[in-house]
Amino acid sequence: MMMGEDLEDGHLGPYPDRLRTFPNMRGKSYNPLIFRILMGINVRVLFVILFLTLGVVFYIGASTSPIIVFVFSVCIVSFLLAMHLAKWVLAKDEGPPEMGQISDAIRDGAEGFFRTQYGTISKMAFLLAGVILCIYLFRTTTPQQESSGLGRVATAFITVAAFLLGAFCSGVAGYVGMWVSVRANVRVSSAARRSAREALQIAVRAGGFSAMIVVGMAVIGIAILYATFYVWLGVDTPGSMKVTDLPLLLVGYGFGASFVALFAQLGGGIFTKAADVGADLVGKVEQGIPEDDPRNPAVIADLVGDNVGDCAARGADLFESIAAEIISAMILGGTMAQRCKIEDPSGFILFPLVVHSFDLVISSIGILSIRGTRDSGAKGSMEDPMTILERGYSITVVLAVLTFGASTRWLLYTEQAPSAWFHFALCGLVGIITAYIFVWITKYYTDYKYEPVRTLALASSTGHGTNIIAGVSLGLESTALPVLVISVAIVSAYWLGQTSGLMDENGVPTGGLFGTAVATMGMLSTAAYVLTMDMFGPIADNAGGIVEMSQQPESVREITDVLDAVGNTTKATTKGFAIGSAALASFLLFSAYMDEVATFAHEPFKQVDIAIPEVFVGGLLGSMLIFLFSAWACSAVGRTAQEVVREVRRQFIERPGIMEYKEKPDYARCVAIVASASLREMIKPGALAIVSPIAVGIVFRIFGYYTGQPLLGAKVVASMLMFATVSGILMALFLNTSGGAWDNAKKYIETGVLGGKGSDCHKAAVTGDTVGDPFKDTAGPSLHVLIKMLATITLVMAPVFL
Amino acid sequence: MMMGEDLEDGHLGPYPDRLRTFPNMRGKSYNPLIFRILMGINVRVLFVILFLTLGVVFYIGASTSPIIVFVFSVCIVSFLLAMHLAKWVLAKDEGPPEMGQISDAIRDGAEGFFRTQYGTISKMAFLLAGVILCIYLFRTTTPQQESSGLGRVATAFITVAAFLLGAFCSGVAGYVGMWVSVRANVRVSSAARRSAREALQIAVRAGGFSAMIVVGMAVIGIAILYATFYVWLGVDTPGSMKVTDLPLLLVGYGFGASFVALFAQLGGGIFTKAADVGADLVGKVEQGIPEDDPRNPAVIADLVGDNVGDCAARGADLFESIAAEIISAMILGGTMAQRCKIEDPSGFILFPLVVHSFDLVISSIGILSIRGTRDSGAKGSMEDPMTILERGYSITVVLAVLTFGASTRWLLYTEQAPSAWFHFALCGLVGIITAYIFVWITKYYTDYKYEPVRTLALASSTGHGTNIIAGVSLGLESTALPVLVISVAIVSAYWLGQTSGLMDENGVPTGGLFGTAVATMGMLSTAAYVLTMDMFGPIADNAGGIVEMSQQPESVREITDVLDAVGNTTKATTKGFAIGSAALASFLLFSAYMDEVATFAHEPFKQVDIAIPEVFVGGLLGSMLIFLFSAWACSAVGRTAQEVVREVRRQFIERPGIMEYKEKPDYARCVAIVASASLREMIKPGALAIVSPIAVGIVFRIFGYYTGQPLLGAKVVASMLMFATVSGILMALFLNTSGGAWDNAKKYIETGVLGGKGSDCHKAAVTGDTVGDPFKDTAGPSLHVLIKMLATITLVMAPVFL
Repeated sequence: MMMGEDLEDGHLGPYPDRLRTFPNMRGKSYNPLIFRILMGINVRVLFVILFLTLGVVFYIGASTSPIIVFVFSVCIVSFLLAMHLAKWVLAKDEGPPEMGQISDAIRDGAEGFFRTQYGTISKMAFLLAGVILCIYLFRTTTPQQESSGLGRVATAFITVAAFLLGAFCSGVAGYVGMWVSVRANVRVSSAARRSAREALQIAVRAGGFSAMIVVGMAVIGIAILYATFYVWLGVDTPGSMKVTDLPLLLVGYGFGASFVALFAQLGGGIFTKAADVGADLVGKVEQGIPEDDPRNPAVIADLVGDNVGDCAARGADLFESIAAEIISAMILGGTMAQRCKIEDPSGFILFPLVVHSFDLVISSIGILSIRGTRDSGAKGSMEDPMTILERGYSITVVLAVLTFGASTRWLLYTEQAPSAWFHFALCGLVGIITAYIFVWITKYYTDYKYEPVRTLALASSTGHGTNIIAGVSLGLESTALPVLVISVAIVSAYWLGQTSGLMDENGVPTGGLFGTAVATMGMLSTAAYVLTMDMFGPIADNAGGIVEMSQQPESVREITDVLDAVGNTTKATTKGFAIGSAALASFLLFSAYMDEVATFAHEPFKQVDIAIPEVFVGGLLGSMLIFLFSAWACSAVGRTAQEVVREVRRQFIERPGIMEYKEKPDYARCVAIVASASLREMIKPGALAIVSPIAVGIVFRIFGYYTGQPLLGAKVVASMLMFATVSGILMALFLNTSGGAWDNAKKYIETGVLGGKGSDCHKAAVTGDTVGDPFKDTAGPSLHVLIKMLATITLVMAPVFL
Repeated sequence: MMMGEDLEDGHLGPYPDRLRTFPNMRGKSYNPLIFRILMGINVRVLFVILFLTLGVVFYIGASTSPIIVFVFSVCIVSFLLAMHLAKWVLAKDEGPPEMGQISDAIRDGAEGFFRTQYGTISKMAFLLAGVILCIYLFRTTTPQQESSGLGRVATAFITVAAFLLGAFCSGVAGYVGMWVSVRANVRVSSAARRSAREALQIAVRAGGFSAMIVVGMAVIGIAILYATFYVWLGVDTPGSMKVTDLPLLLVGYGFGASFVALFAQLGGGIFTKAADVGADLVGKVEQGIPEDDPRNPAVIADLVGDNVGDCAARGADLFESIAAEIISAMILGGTMAQRCKIEDPSGFILFPLVVHSFDLVISSIGILSIRGTRDSGAKGSMEDPMTILERGYSITVVLAVLTFGASTRWLLYTEQAPSAWFHFALCGLVGIITAYIFVWITKYYTDYKYEPVRTLALASSTGHGTNIIAGVSLGLESTALPVLVISVAIVSAYWLGQTSGLMDENGVPTGGLFGTAVATMGMLSTAAYVLTMDMFGPIADNAGGIVEMSQQPESVREITDVLDAVGNTTKATTKGFAIGSAALASFLLFSAYMDEVATFAHEPFKQVDIAIPEVFVGGLLGSMLIFLFSAWACSAVGRTAQEVVREVRRQFIERPGIMEYKEKPDYARCVAIVASASLREMIKPGALAIVSPIAVGIVFRIFGYYTGQPLLGAKVVASMLMFATVSGILMALFLNTSGGAWDNAKKYIETGVLGGKGSDCHKAAVTGDTVGDPFKDTAGPSLHVLIKMLATITLVMAPVFL
């Protein structure tokens, strides 16, 4: 179904010569339609089109604000740098043919699944776009919009267009992540035969490529939308829309991005973990063959899963994080600038775009600082790759502090409150420090250098049961410190903002929320580098799989094993980062929602009072939504994994030659089973996430109408959103950390302690690892996206709650 | 340490005659000091004292209200009935001496642990009483108190006295539960040799005894306090306190009760599950010996655990539930009566006491309806005990509907709103229906007759990992329906109350919250019967253990096995009941807290606005508290279980004769290990629960003072309380249901499906059961208590947040 025909009829019988690798794995190469069209056009024509487009974009940008021109320039330079990185990676050799064959099989599986999955997602996106269009055509318009001549129809089409553009960009972000990783994996494997350092560098630059594209696309997409609306609607000319209201039109973009990211993460997460759990349960536990062994029929599905689950989904996830955060910060900046009657509000509105432009610059310095030349030095042994990555991170963080300070002085200086920019710079520092502490806490709870994972490993020595209890306790406990840190961050950033000197017309300090927004930006100010570290993980994991499957010598495997272990740690830490920023971003979007409701309802909407029974019930339902969503995400993996287990068991029984390398397992069948199951299973939790806030809002709107409580629907949804955010943060922290800790407890035992590989203790640890898989790679990361999607969906759907 | 000296030096060598049971297990019998004093007094003197006390009590009652006299009378009749039940149970034979020996060992262990545990708890209670006294001596008094001459000192001593009385009664409730269960267990075992029906009847009546005492004590305790304060303070005479303010003085009683219940549940829960998990992991999984096998050194500790964990702790838990619910409903009734200027408010205030008086009457009818005579009928086979218990429950529920309607007409009829009583009767019906649906939902998710547990059992066939994933998903999913039900109950009861016709002086409807309170009472209106079913479980479990250990014939074991399985189901369903009522009670206590803060702060306190960052942070911390508390409760069990595993392994290695029944295991050592570990481990989570709301309140009070936000501490604590309640309900549902489902999935496989006992599938199911143990019997039930304790602690500590 997904892979080449020659794979489908798997009965190739025993191998003539090379016994341990599998020829003829090459499937049909796939290029998306848009690539094919582009490649069909003459290069000169393409260049002319490109220059014309750039010219138009820059013209619009220049008519809007010089800041926009700066943002455009940085993004385009970043894209050029990303092209350079991609070219550099692709120029590396693909290694011996047996590696190429495996890599091709992975690529075909990944691209096949991606095509089918995004086909389904795009159908749903168009359906939802239709629904949004209908709602907006019947919504009430705000007086501002009326006065600016922006009627119902225009707003409807703007929102839908923004939604579809966001969804499209999110899809492209996912595709780019996967595109480079299925090409880089084999090059990393090949390089690992020569030098650890070179392998590391390839993986980092491949990750860097997609990080630059993802972040750059989020920034330039919003910048283009903003500039287009600005010019088109004639903003700030008398009688038309005010610039401070402009960011509200971008909300659709964020919703589109999070909509696609949610389904990408769900589908990909179910795919990767069902294949992984299924492969492990039969391969490792029952048959005792190592991980990524070519005899395991589910091994290609597992490697495919790393690409669709980790690379594609995380690309979409981070894209959506940045987009949501930029838009919410722009809305809050606009609202504040308007309240404080700041003369030129564009600095406050465009600040997030500039922060992320600098993010692109400093992250590329960080990425390029990881060089491959020093490996041939005096010492033959390899430097710890984690140290190298962390050095790059430290460089990026230091530069982030400097550029952040510069940006605040440039854009947030206002004569009304001369010291405000410094307060906001401190807010940014709070965010950067928070991100740093988050990364550190996650490392403490998931790295086996520290106490918690060692205790967990020890608990495995008394059986499967105590291992699970200890892991669950560890995960639940690990929520405490991040919550304390985020609490301190919220309160301190709010108060730094509140005391910034910015006052509204009544002399009330109003900078608090914007302070929190700036802290969120500070937290995300190294996003591109963090995403690079994250993408590094699955590429290294895949490279390890290719090395294992193509039966390379032990020394090569050792190198990829080290890279893989580092990848596990970076993956865990970036998840901490993602959930921390989601918590802050969601709090901002919540404020934006309240502003929006107030605008539409023509009355103040400042409070969400949980002492009202209906509002309390909304909270109860919001928290319940998180539990139910997690349940469905985990059980989807469990169910699909059981199908894989049955298929793998069947193949081992029906083809007894597999275990002696005499017969070829039917990899394609496993890929097909996992692919179709994960597409089926992603619908239920996804639909729950989209339908339930809308349903609750409408039900309580009607209930409020009959019981004489105005705005009840909007209030209940607000409380639902807040409780869902809080429970979602805690649940995601629990799931991510316990999963990561189980994984590393297993790895710790595999280093030889407590009996080492094959002992009873190791078996118990493998059980823990299996349980942790859907926690940390399906439900956990889906919750990051869910939290922000809930916030954007309530923003876009606000009219139906009133 | 805990058990008799003759047990301590365990080396008794091989047995002379009866190879498989252990003589000389009899330890010293233990009677609490108060019993010894009472028994030292002449019976006639005792009777005179009793009559004099009764006379004084009735005199005070008669001076207060005829309703109080009614409540007193019902409680005293119930106590007499409870005595009758106890006498009936104790008159049954104790069976052959080998049963008696085992039962004595269990009793000694249980009473020993109880003594030590309550020694620790009482020290902490006195410490806390001192803290409360200090706080109240420096608190600000309300104008009402000032005017009634009730100054600072009097309030302080009243609160502390109420706290200590509540704590004492809660302790007695726990002791009574355990006292009867360690005596009934052996009688049930003995009766099981003759007739299943008789065994069932003994277990039910023993459970009924403690249920009557627990509920009766909660009711009469509050009634006596109320009447005493009423007479002493000269309430309702001009210039003194108003009767509607009186219930606020009772809050200390509720706090004392929940304080003791929390530690009882934590200590007992850790004890019982650490012993259970430890015994299972080595006995069942490693050595392959059956459950409750006399060769397992941890088996006595496991049986002791059932008594201290399930009987004693659940007694204290239900006592606390009822006390908290009565007090909060009295406060709300008083507040409402005052706002609506109802002429005689005592009906509204004393309504909860009457409901529970009727509860005692109808539950005793339900208990007595389960008779032992029909067993010798035409059919030799036994009727399903579950059916018998459910028939009793149906009788009780029908009577509850009738008596509830009568009570509302009697007490809640007022001429101001003639149809109000009917609205409140409907609220009660909502509560009764909610309880019924809760019980049904829990059964659906935990009984192996239904789909969820069967799916879970099927997931065990693909390994330990898929079993755990499926169980976690099931537990998370099972939160959805109860939340929907409780949401509908809250909203509908609130609106039934709001439309009751009761208006305050401005014509605003005010009956809403009282409607919710009445629904809670409806839910708890069959509490005594539910508690009976709950107590039935551990007694049957213990009886099964005694039968197993004394090597009775298969037919006897079959009978106790059936009773044990029924006990598991009733235990699970009553947990659903407990958490449902905790959710409602906590919402009421929250309202009472807001009223109290408003009274102390001399300004309105009507809203808890989560859009304020600090208030949002309070919510974040509240939810986090639940996660951290659960983590610590689970890890306490895990750690203690590991100690047990090591000890049991050590004994099997050092005494190889144990496995051939030639050497006696050292039971006492296991009991001592578990006892000291659980006392140590209960402190950390317990202290967290008490300290964190106080610390958060004080920190934000100070922060609010410096940032100019009045009442910030109180608001943050309120939001913390609400988020903790919501997260606590969901977490408790998750933990209870997944634990129960794992247990029954194992039992389902043991009936012979999917390979039956000893298969790989069964082993995976045992792992799930082990994980579920601390979930369902330590963390889950502790969360029920925690939720209500948080509510009462904030009420009592309110002055320090202002």
